[in-house]
Amino acid sequence: MSASGDVQLPIGVFDSGVGGLTVLNAIRQRLPNENLIYLGDTARVPYGTKSALSVTRYAEQAAKALIERNVKMLVIACNTASAVAIEPLQYLYPDIPVIGVIGPGADASCDATQSQHIGVIATEGTVNNQAYQNAILERLPSASVVAHPCSLFVALAEEGWHNGDLVKQIVEACLEPFRHVDHPMIDTLVLGCTHFPALKGVIGEVMGDAVSLVDSAEITARAVADRLQIDGLLNIGAVKGEVQFLVTDGPTRFARVAQHFFSDPIPASEIQLVDIQHFAH
Amino acid sequence: MSASGDVQLPIGVFDSGVGGLTVLNAIRQRLPNENLIYLGDTARVPYGTKSALSVTRYAEQAAKALIERNVKMLVIACNTASAVAIEPLQYLYPDIPVIGVIGPGADASCDATQSQHIGVIATEGTVNNQAYQNAILERLPSASVVAHPCSLFVALAEEGWHNGDLVKQIVEACLEPFRHVDHPMIDTLVLGCTHFPALKGVIGEVMGDAVSLVDSAEITARAVADRLQIDGLLNIGAVKGEVQFLVTDGPTRFARVAQHFFSDPIPASEIQLVDIQHFAH
Repeated sequence: MSASGDVQLPIGVFDSGVGGLTVLNAIRQRLPNENLIYLGDTARVPYGTKSALSVTRYAEQAAKALIERNVKMLVIACNTASAVAIEPLQYLYPDIPVIGVIGPGADASCDATQSQHIGVIATEGTVNNQAYQNAILERLPSASVVAHPCSLFVALAEEGWHNGDLVKQIVEACLEPFRHVDHPMIDTLVLGCTHFPALKGVIGEVMGDAVSLVDSAEITARAVADRLQIDGLLNIGAVKGEVQFLVTDGPTRFARVAQHFFSDPIPASEIQLVDIQHFAH
Repeated sequence: MSASGDVQLPIGVFDSGVGGLTVLNAIRQRLPNENLIYLGDTARVPYGTKSALSVTRYAEQAAKALIERNVKMLVIACNTASAVAIEPLQYLYPDIPVIGVIGPGADASCDATQSQHIGVIATEGTVNNQAYQNAILERLPSASVVAHPCSLFVALAEEGWHNGDLVKQIVEACLEPFRHVDHPMIDTLVLGCTHFPALKGVIGEVMGDAVSLVDSAEITARAVADRLQIDGLLNIGAVKGEVQFLVTDGPTRFARVAQHFFSDPIPASEIQLVDIQHFAH
């Protein structure tokens, strides 16, 4: 049996920092038996304002660190990295499944829309790369897709500004472009950054009940489960899986900010500091 | 004459990204004859939420890139890097002056205060390191210093959210700790992050006329001029100096965001992309 065929091997999940914990959370809830390794590249977070070249390089280094730990699958739990680096990573690691968050998010938004007017909010990098726009149009060529960056939401989510009047006013200002008369009214909005589910309540209030919000964390977890099943890689019947955390900087801050994104406390003492910046690219 | 004795050599200025352009601007206005090289470590921005260990490493790599370009002086135009890395850099480069923004900021706040109650707003890294607190108490042992992180201000400054009612409400919420009854009323507030001068107008409105704002950009420029004069390194009588820009990622984004921090447009085509992450540390 090849290493990648060992069902007990962990699933490797990486993100630029803490945001990907929303994806890890969803995977753990759906697949409690799986062993998981999460890597947050906190030494270089955020990816969302950096160039495709740098993000691809960082994603390759993060993936390498997980591959060295013998994972059976790679999950890119970061929209920006999924947008630019999924193809290079699938090319580099053809023997294991490599899953990003864009494909599942595009699937879900095409399922959800009736008017075929879909909005996307994401980081600058994801919007500029047009990854969601292209992925949605591949699936639903007649759709109209409007994407806008909402960089402020990342800071709000990390600072724990998740609700209240002031947060609602900020969210209204950032989502203003979707309410311009020159844009068709959308009926589906993709939360195209792993930080944004922290603001889901307020975003829902601002956009109203007529707009479905697509949260890529839950959908990606489903895609992970489906793919493991197809490949015969599910860790069925085992005891509860273990979760291991790696960061490239600041375990203490990671542990503190993680509480906004992960359902259980993560003690800083259980977070391992790793250096991936020296990996050749 | 040693290389560092050549008055025509440029002054090297570095920051985590665009914020240090406020310092560069002030140096250029005060010393128009000087040649300047600015390095923004945009591949790893921000420094303010990263650990002292990582920021010191990044600062050493940035300094090395400037030293290789034969600068006559190093200016750390980033509060977080000044807080943690000035001593290592002074040790590494004893032959040239190395100036940070914390010392000049502390000097100016001690000059400005009458009540000896001084407030500091900065990034998490600068606050946690207690650099301003220590620097002010060294100069004025009887002072009381209250420091609070205002991480959201960085995002507001970069997004161009510099004024208006909503920005004022956000600034009020962030500065709330300075208006608690259990804190003595401050009469001086240090803007301890190079991004914050972009919000100076609103911060002034919120704090009121009774509170002096200390903007480290202007004060650091004065310290640079004083030190060059003392060392006989001023480039007197020369033609207008040249300014060169280096970034570690994304010249296009740098050029765009720079408009919020620098008085002249910087064409992306004039910004050179450099790699410093491979430098040994």
